Amino acid sequence: MEEKRFSHLRELLVDTKPVDIAEAMEEMGEEAPESTIIVFRLLPKDLAAEVFSYLSTAEQLSIVGALHEKQLKNIVEELNFDDKIDFLEEMPANVVKRILKNVTEEERTLINQFLNYPEYSAGSLMTIEYIDLKKEMTVFEALQHIRTTGVDKETIYTCYVLNETRKLEGIVSLRKLVLAEAHMLIEDLMDEDLINTSTWDDQEEVADLFKKYDLMTLPVVDQEGRLVGIITIDDIVDVIEQENTEDFEKMAALLPGDEEYLDASILTMAKKRLPWLLILMISATFTGSIISRFEDVLQAVVVLAAAIPMLMDTAGNAGNQSSTLVIRGIALGEIELEDYLQVLWKEFRISLLVGLMLGLINFVRMLLIVESSVLVAVTVSFTLSLTVVMAKIFGGLMPIIAKKMKVDPAIMAGPLITTIVDAMALIVYFNMASLILGIH
Amino acid sequence: MEEKRFSHLRELLVDTKPVDIAEAMEEMGEEAPESTIIVFRLLPKDLAAEVFSYLSTAEQLSIVGALHEKQLKNIVEELNFDDKIDFLEEMPANVVKRILKNVTEEERTLINQFLNYPEYSAGSLMTIEYIDLKKEMTVFEALQHIRTTGVDKETIYTCYVLNETRKLEGIVSLRKLVLAEAHMLIEDLMDEDLINTSTWDDQEEVADLFKKYDLMTLPVVDQEGRLVGIITIDDIVDVIEQENTEDFEKMAALLPGDEEYLDASILTMAKKRLPWLLILMISATFTGSIISRFEDVLQAVVVLAAAIPMLMDTAGNAGNQSSTLVIRGIALGEIELEDYLQVLWKEFRISLLVGLMLGLINFVRMLLIVESSVLVAVTVSFTLSLTVVMAKIFGGLMPIIAKKMKVDPAIMAGPLITTIVDAMALIVYFNMASLILGIH
Repeated sequence: MEEKRFSHLRELLVDTKPVDIAEAMEEMGEEAPESTIIVFRLLPKDLAAEVFSYLSTAEQLSIVGALHEKQLKNIVEELNFDDKIDFLEEMPANVVKRILKNVTEEERTLINQFLNYPEYSAGSLMTIEYIDLKKEMTVFEALQHIRTTGVDKETIYTCYVLNETRKLEGIVSLRKLVLAEAHMLIEDLMDEDLINTSTWDDQEEVADLFKKYDLMTLPVVDQEGRLVGIITIDDIVDVIEQENTEDFEKMAALLPGDEEYLDASILTMAKKRLPWLLILMISATFTGSIISRFEDVLQAVVVLAAAIPMLMDTAGNAGNQSSTLVIRGIALGEIELEDYLQVLWKEFRISLLVGLMLGLINFVRMLLIVESSVLVAVTVSFTLSLTVVMAKIFGGLMPIIAKKMKVDPAIMAGPLITTIVDAMALIVYFNMASLILGIH
Repeated sequence: MEEKRFSHLRELLVDTKPVDIAEAMEEMGEEAPESTIIVFRLLPKDLAAEVFSYLSTAEQLSIVGALHEKQLKNIVEELNFDDKIDFLEEMPANVVKRILKNVTEEERTLINQFLNYPEYSAGSLMTIEYIDLKKEMTVFEALQHIRTTGVDKETIYTCYVLNETRKLEGIVSLRKLVLAEAHMLIEDLMDEDLINTSTWDDQEEVADLFKKYDLMTLPVVDQEGRLVGIITIDDIVDVIEQENTEDFEKMAALLPGDEEYLDASILTMAKKRLPWLLILMISATFTGSIISRFEDVLQAVVVLAAAIPMLMDTAGNAGNQSSTLVIRGIALGEIELEDYLQVLWKEFRISLLVGLMLGLINFVRMLLIVESSVLVAVTVSFTLSLTVVMAKIFGGLMPIIAKKMKVDPAIMAGPLITTIVDAMALIVYFNMASLILGIH
């Protein structure tokens, strides 16, 4: 590659979206790590910082390793404050030390304070780059203030009105400022009835506030009502996906974790998977012991064994459907604790309808296709209908009970419900068989 | 209630967030429907429209029924254009007719055009209330234009630069305008390298663009590049939750649907649940026929039957874990089609680790607690390890194969995977038993 080609490449890069450059670098990094450094060095300082914030931790580390002290300092200076914190959180201690060496005393204190906010808290999401106004300002003065201080701010569309002790008194949108007369006072324009959160609040609650009130930004205040930072919607979109992923994982008997599938090590992955598999395996042996207990019934009518997978699977699926709908309803705020009777009544009627349909279809199938005896067909079909009803009521109520007991409803999904309703199904089945077929 | 109490209530309401008023009305509506109408009538026109847009379809219908022609007209006029479309989409034909009677010819045409965009398309998400600028304008002129036309716009933070044929030439943020010098030309400030979408694009793709580029708004253009509307992030947050709900439902063997759990009728709910339950029930009978085929093995060593639930459940759970992680990885863009070999290799190593651990623990358990014979314990434990490996590789690859075949990967989750790996587990089990225990 010659000098000319580089300057051409640089021109191309400047016209490309930062996230697309980052994506291309990640792909290149797999085959030719040194070329990603070359591309990165070609980027102008501000673009480089933006691209850097989109890179994976692994790629960031390899770039940090290749940069000189001064280049690194430039990049870190250009990073948005919240991206800076995210980046430092992921870096090993020696890199953090190397970076903190190069910042001012004041910024170091601030960074350390932010690094101490618990993961998944409002504090860990916020940035300090906001516009602050005073209520005595006129619109004209406020706009002047925004023009002089706005360049480095994460957003200028919502401005925060603070008093001399930095207590948050109100917010005013740039929209209001632009549409108002120049001589009007901020005090008369600002919205005092504001939604806020505190540094220690959970990110899920923060996301719920954004969703409920259609917010773009949310102020974070301390116990004295002083503004400590703001959270912007782009970070909330990531939180929503994170929380959904966590629910998906819990519902599939996985311990939730942060790492992307392709990045996680085999050991991390095994640790995510083993605990629940083990618990559920042990639980399933109890289901097995039910079969042992009714060995004589099975031995008397061996054909009964063939229906076991169908009964267990259908019970599990039916319970799983109900628990998933209720878990999702709770997560989206559509179902509250006090709705449990409604859920019960609803699941009862649906399960009756679905259970009877399935039982009927199975009855016909067994008579016509398998050519079972009527009594065996009755035993299996009746068990099927009954377990669907039990599974659905159980599946619908367990997430609500979990929520009531302050346990995440998401764990009351598929695998756990399946294991329990499997046992239910077998108990009903063998008792029905004893009763209807007269085996003792 | 007296006149005084009403005016007091009204004052209270004006200071309350619209979504909170809507929520309170919904709760009141369950017990005293007429009082919701009274509260609604107390609201000033603009607040009433905002509250109205947050109400459920059922509540909207009951209010529309109680309003006079003129009141209804006022509310509809005040609604944001996209809220108006959402509302009309949900209303029965006679209500739509009643409302369209009251709007101008021009608006009626526009509404009808918007009502025709397919559900879940970019067109159905967009609004027409945006700011348009010309590239010849100066910053001063542009800000003047925003001040005179901005009041009714959904957002003024992103402005769209159009030529005389309404072709989109660039976008410029209010941030840039406010920070720029008054005499500068829009042409020199605008960003021409813009991300856009077309009316027929799927909402999931639109949401992916927002997530990838951290967008606040996205322009929607027609085939000639003319701007037809804009999509804002608040609607995208809803889309993200909708798409996640759809995945949760598909992964729990449910047909996806729009209605909230508590609002959906029993019949709608049964229709959501029955098809997959039926398909999976029929599939599970094949699993059952495997048991029938190996009846002699079971009859020779009845104790083998007791391990069937444990083997089936563990295989299902193991496969389910892998498929869920891969489905989620695909949904979040972390796993691409070409990564299939990586997934295969990863699942192989993890499943070997997890499978061996589970097999070992089970072997010890069977010897010490159940006091099985060594050969039976070997049969069960070896089957367990082997099926975990098979289930995880199968569970990890199926979503990618589905994606390759343009089927939604989400259906390759729990229930379907479980049914298939159950059958695998049994076939391995009985063959192992025949082999190790020497039963023919």
